Amino acid sequence: MEAPTPRTRVKRHPERGAYDREVVHAILDEALICHLAYVSEDGSPRVIPTIHTRIDDTLYLHGSAASRTMRATKGGLEVAVAATIVDGLVLARSWANHSMNYRSVVVYGTAREVTDPEERLAVARSIVEHVVPGRTEHTRMPNPTEDKETTMLAVPLAEASAKIRSGPPVDDEADLASPAWAGVLPVTLATGTPVPDGDLRDLPQHVGDYRRPGGTR
Amino acid sequence: MEAPTPRTRVKRHPERGAYDREVVHAILDEALICHLAYVSEDGSPRVIPTIHTRIDDTLYLHGSAASRTMRATKGGLEVAVAATIVDGLVLARSWANHSMNYRSVVVYGTAREVTDPEERLAVARSIVEHVVPGRTEHTRMPNPTEDKETTMLAVPLAEASAKIRSGPPVDDEADLASPAWAGVLPVTLATGTPVPDGDLRDLPQHVGDYRRPGGTR
Repeated sequence: MEAPTPRTRVKRHPERGAYDREVVHAILDEALICHLAYVSEDGSPRVIPTIHTRIDDTLYLHGSAASRTMRATKGGLEVAVAATIVDGLVLARSWANHSMNYRSVVVYGTAREVTDPEERLAVARSIVEHVVPGRTEHTRMPNPTEDKETTMLAVPLAEASAKIRSGPPVDDEADLASPAWAGVLPVTLATGTPVPDGDLRDLPQHVGDYRRPGGTR
Repeated sequence: MEAPTPRTRVKRHPERGAYDREVVHAILDEALICHLAYVSEDGSPRVIPTIHTRIDDTLYLHGSAASRTMRATKGGLEVAVAATIVDGLVLARSWANHSMNYRSVVVYGTAREVTDPEERLAVARSIVEHVVPGRTEHTRMPNPTEDKETTMLAVPLAEASAKIRSGPPVDDEADLASPAWAGVLPVTLATGTPVPDGDLRDLPQHVGDYRRPGGTR
């Protein structure tokens, strides 16, 4: 993964590109959701939001919508997957220099459907743990019917790149005399008060202490 | 926009589909960013995160990466655009019934490049205002060089659909006796303490009072 390919090389703002395995993994692990793009049978682009997880050097996705297309495709479905975390709004002294601080990953690859029962169970567990660590030990694992209803796709993380912007606005020299306030408004995903379903119970630690990286509650 | 087309009709969980103009507009307006998918010249899918805005019934995008492909495409570039807001983590009593509460929009259409100077200025203003309402009056509008460096795409909102999940987990009857805590963990985008660039100044209202819909700070 360390060497960019022609399509993963970051062309616009190349200084924002990162190809290290650890950087790509960390962004995929932190992002709650991703967007899966593929080309439909009629040749037009499709994109859907979906939940993902990572195990070692493989990205796994729920693939219900894409699965119809995948089954019509010999040898797997070519996909592009993006996961993006917004870290801040960058307020510059000119409209054009406004930006966002973000960390994003794009993965290109050929998706295969996950059919091996052991791998499927590991993916099911990992997807729940990706969203709420510690959750699977408290809840029931999939029964055969649920398992049959779930499509899982695997995409090797062989062709992936990260793009990161951080730090203050970059303004033109001539704009620095502007009276405008400039700087960064950080944004994080905050967790609100849990809304219980059914009887009120003591919150277990994995719910009561839940917060996103850098997030409040 | 009220009648779904074959590709905008929500097939999985059709009860979550919405095709009303107002619903689609509201989600696009609230979502900070979107993901733009298109088919590259070699026929493979591409997806990039980007900032958007909406004016009336048109979606506008920054399109730097897609613009190379677009220029090679006669009559505009076919795109799929998704904007997704995560509202909560849905914690069920079984792994398979875990879900997320979200509001998402997918738009299909042919993008044209925005070249008219008046339209370009309106889009530049609208993109900044989309992210930080009230910001443009305090900051400098684009000069001719900046304007030339910016690619803008317009996509008509003629073929768009929303998909929404809200409310508590839906568990199997047999799981209701589970001792697991079940319910929803709401998530919102919280604004942190503004980080000024340069001299410390009084925060103007559009910065000091900034918060996302439903968000804290």
